Amino acid sequence: MKVGQEHYRTIWFDEISSTVNIIDQTKLPHRFEIAQLRSLEEVANAITTMQVRGAPLIGATAAYGIVLAMRDEPSDAGLKQAAIELLATRPTAINLRWALNLLTEELAALPVTLRLDAAKRRAELICNEDVVCCEAIGEHGRVLISEISEREKRPVNIMTHCNAGWLATVDWGTALAPVYKAFNAGIDLHMWVSETRPRNQGMYLTSWELAAHGVPHTVISDNAAGHLMQQGLVDLCIVGTDRTLVTGDVCNKIGTYLKALAADAHKVPFYVAVPSSSIEWHGLREGSEIPIEQRGSEEIHTIVSLNSEAKPIESILCDNSAASFPTQYRNDAFDVTPSTLVSGLITERGLCEASEKALLELFPEHRR
Amino acid sequence: MKVGQEHYRTIWFDEISSTVNIIDQTKLPHRFEIAQLRSLEEVANAITTMQVRGAPLIGATAAYGIVLAMRDEPSDAGLKQAAIELLATRPTAINLRWALNLLTEELAALPVTLRLDAAKRRAELICNEDVVCCEAIGEHGRVLISEISEREKRPVNIMTHCNAGWLATVDWGTALAPVYKAFNAGIDLHMWVSETRPRNQGMYLTSWELAAHGVPHTVISDNAAGHLMQQGLVDLCIVGTDRTLVTGDVCNKIGTYLKALAADAHKVPFYVAVPSSSIEWHGLREGSEIPIEQRGSEEIHTIVSLNSEAKPIESILCDNSAASFPTQYRNDAFDVTPSTLVSGLITERGLCEASEKALLELFPEHRR
Repeated sequence: MKVGQEHYRTIWFDEISSTVNIIDQTKLPHRFEIAQLRSLEEVANAITTMQVRGAPLIGATAAYGIVLAMRDEPSDAGLKQAAIELLATRPTAINLRWALNLLTEELAALPVTLRLDAAKRRAELICNEDVVCCEAIGEHGRVLISEISEREKRPVNIMTHCNAGWLATVDWGTALAPVYKAFNAGIDLHMWVSETRPRNQGMYLTSWELAAHGVPHTVISDNAAGHLMQQGLVDLCIVGTDRTLVTGDVCNKIGTYLKALAADAHKVPFYVAVPSSSIEWHGLREGSEIPIEQRGSEEIHTIVSLNSEAKPIESILCDNSAASFPTQYRNDAFDVTPSTLVSGLITERGLCEASEKALLELFPEHRR
Repeated sequence: MKVGQEHYRTIWFDEISSTVNIIDQTKLPHRFEIAQLRSLEEVANAITTMQVRGAPLIGATAAYGIVLAMRDEPSDAGLKQAAIELLATRPTAINLRWALNLLTEELAALPVTLRLDAAKRRAELICNEDVVCCEAIGEHGRVLISEISEREKRPVNIMTHCNAGWLATVDWGTALAPVYKAFNAGIDLHMWVSETRPRNQGMYLTSWELAAHGVPHTVISDNAAGHLMQQGLVDLCIVGTDRTLVTGDVCNKIGTYLKALAADAHKVPFYVAVPSSSIEWHGLREGSEIPIEQRGSEEIHTIVSLNSEAKPIESILCDNSAASFPTQYRNDAFDVTPSTLVSGLITERGLCEASEKALLELFPEHRR
């Protein structure tokens, strides 16, 4: 998508410097900065510290981590070690495992001398396919929005959570792809953006994306989602996912589940935009079995903001460490929304209900 | 309650300086500061800017606003004007109207020369009665906690929202009074404190109170409430209320409704601690009719925190004002939880279900 007048993807390989270039998302919205990752370690670190985030983009970034590993150590041991290191960065995102499996299987079958070039080709292919996939999700999801627009003859109010926009993918986004497609087609719409504590990806990334693209939007506290639905101010929810089980249970950013409960209570359609690479086709079948990443407490009790000179600063929200009982923190990064609360999935092959039967009809190649 | 070794109330009148003294809650947890309010205008401003907040404390503060008004202008016109000015500070809190009605009715019947002394006596009585009332709520609510403790034989996990502790009242608190009573009685318990965006009263005030008193507690993002209940980590929710209708619909801090929905989905008992002064006995009967205060957008896109020298600073979370579509904000301060989602009310006269019938049985003097 465009930043200013220039078209960007969130990730690309620079042949001259032999680096992986990314938009550093920990700097947004305060600074638009490109970071150059020069080694496997820097790639792993970029995923862990969330310089890149979003399930599809994590997959693409991991692929480029393998590229750098193959440049430096293309042996079987080097390949295996790189995959282990990258897999350990984020325990919940399924695309990470998907991309690493794809690459290690393909590269292990090749002579050592061919691995770097093959890794580059595969990583580029993953990126290009992600763009095509997200654009297709956009086209299928757009129909949901235009139907409401035609029925209601007023701006369509859509709520999202966290950031599942183009910053979470290589381009277009998952949950926001239908929004961009509808907006570009001239459909009158308005987005509710929940700030998404503790890392504020809604307020920091989604609002930045939408503002840059010119899409009308309003930032709210996460707490306001139920109230707005109760007031009839939400026509549709669309969220992304870090991992969706073949049974339709959806793992996504913490807070998604509360929105799904409220949507269910008020009969607001609740859709999940899911590229097939985010689906766990074989493996877990129960949402409750998905391991939930526990992140550091500093994400809750410190914050990055801009001071009066527009300089990014880190400051302290809460410090009761000297008290008689020092305050503890807990930071679950994701939650699970059961399939029963999901109105439907928006995949690159079309809409379907959140069930194994419907998913396997759309993706028969994953039948066993 | 105690701050360090000293016992404090949240508000008291200083005869020598003829000022209303309050703990300035906009400074907590970063600074413990006493503010002196010298005039009706300063009292009104303290309520609007939330130097004092919490329905019961707002009522007590408004009473002292009338005291200062009677010191300066005890005429009928002065009394009327003061009540109008104070009533306009916060549109949702019912205790404000309750305290002002009580005082204006009483003072209007008196000669002008007697009004100041009568106002002082009444304001002090409101404060003392609030303490007695909150302590009674504490005793009744404690039983809920001790029952779970005896049944489960492990620490009881209680979730609250916002701050309905002693800082929200004159002393003891509403939702936290049962917690303090249980903790003081030696019951093993642990509190989940949701940070309560956008003003962070959970993280800033509730955790500060609990830490100072030595009560084990963990701060979470508001988004985590549903997930923790789904994981079976919450035995009981207790929240306060800014206004409860006689029908049992509960208006409270934005985000309460999402917790109530999640509690309902997971059969977690959801209790509301409500002094009878927070009940609208006659008037509105439908939660949807309660006017919801819209507060400034700066509460969402700026934040007060501590810099590295432990100095409070205000900084910017989000500023897309130069973008093609500048980001908008919306800040509803409260939401409404329908009586059907409320397991019970904890009043100063005991527990009852959230219904007109049950409330009027406990408070027959409010029958018409």
